[in-house]
Amino acid sequence: MKDLKSINRLIDSYARLPSVGRKSAERMAYATLNMDEETIKEFSDALLDVKKKIKQCPQCGLYMEDDGCEICKDTTRDHSTIIVLSYAKDAYNFEKLNSYHGVYHVLNGVISAIKGVGVEDLNIASLIKRVSEEGIKEVIIATDPTIEGETTALYIAKLLEEKNVTVTRLAYGLPMGGHIDYADSMTIMKALEGRKKI
Amino acid sequence: MKDLKSINRLIDSYARLPSVGRKSAERMAYATLNMDEETIKEFSDALLDVKKKIKQCPQCGLYMEDDGCEICKDTTRDHSTIIVLSYAKDAYNFEKLNSYHGVYHVLNGVISAIKGVGVEDLNIASLIKRVSEEGIKEVIIATDPTIEGETTALYIAKLLEEKNVTVTRLAYGLPMGGHIDYADSMTIMKALEGRKKI
Repeated sequence: MKDLKSINRLIDSYARLPSVGRKSAERMAYATLNMDEETIKEFSDALLDVKKKIKQCPQCGLYMEDDGCEICKDTTRDHSTIIVLSYAKDAYNFEKLNSYHGVYHVLNGVISAIKGVGVEDLNIASLIKRVSEEGIKEVIIATDPTIEGETTALYIAKLLEEKNVTVTRLAYGLPMGGHIDYADSMTIMKALEGRKKI
Repeated sequence: MKDLKSINRLIDSYARLPSVGRKSAERMAYATLNMDEETIKEFSDALLDVKKKIKQCPQCGLYMEDDGCEICKDTTRDHSTIIVLSYAKDAYNFEKLNSYHGVYHVLNGVISAIKGVGVEDLNIASLIKRVSEEGIKEVIIATDPTIEGETTALYIAKLLEEKNVTVTRLAYGLPMGGHIDYADSMTIMKALEGRKKI
């Protein structure tokens, strides 16, 4: 019973998902056994389909299906403002706001000595090219507030120094709805540094 | 971008898994995009395979593949002692102990008025039949310590009253490694009722 190969194989697959430990993967596998055949077929097809149909836009790097990039082809958006992201999925967090109407550029990672990711592994050259050729007015760098994200942001800002473009970075500070008591000291320091007149 | 059908479809599938909310399902779907094709194929196949290959043993109800039930066909086990489970997956918790050498019987649920599960929906008749015909000496009822689990246990105990068999129930009490401080009063009451001489 410990060696039901087909269950173990499915557990292995579930365990590869982010934040899914062995125990959760087991629960998922047993839940799968209780699903009807149609639901499982749908799941299995969805897995194969997503890899086949989803591409990254050759221009900005966002996810798109065969009908092209929704953001790039939208002429009502402000194509002179670019948010620079480490990962395509991060764009959803900005789109949800319904208040950003510019476009995006996805780096596909951050500069990381540890992971061996260098400048040439990221979509940085294409960003510089877009800034030079497309009349970009502002580049908003939205890499994560981590050492690697910071390094990447500073590197890009440096490259864009001589271009006629405003380069900005998302503000750091206390997360809304949080308590000062729970904030780490690095965040409090950043909040202090970035204090504003009221 | 909010309407990438193939991603949304996969998110829907992930969200059907136990304890997976919308946000986790999204993270899983994006992680899937970063998997290589072979890993996804393997995952997709494992899903289809598990439903096709895993059956419940017609005798005891445990999961088995085509080669039959490991527990039922194991002649070194004690076939006169049966643990009665609500769900097949619960057997793993006993097998892990490496100290139980009897066999099992899976009810496939509990008696539940709310969910409309009646006595005839569970594998109770087949349990009574096994007890009558297979020379069972002890039936250990291991349904969950919930109202429904209790009801089911008592119902089965009642049915077995006139048979020449010992019917037992797992002990209730404080979980090992826990603190009395954190235990609910129902658990403490059961621990008190079940106290033993030391």
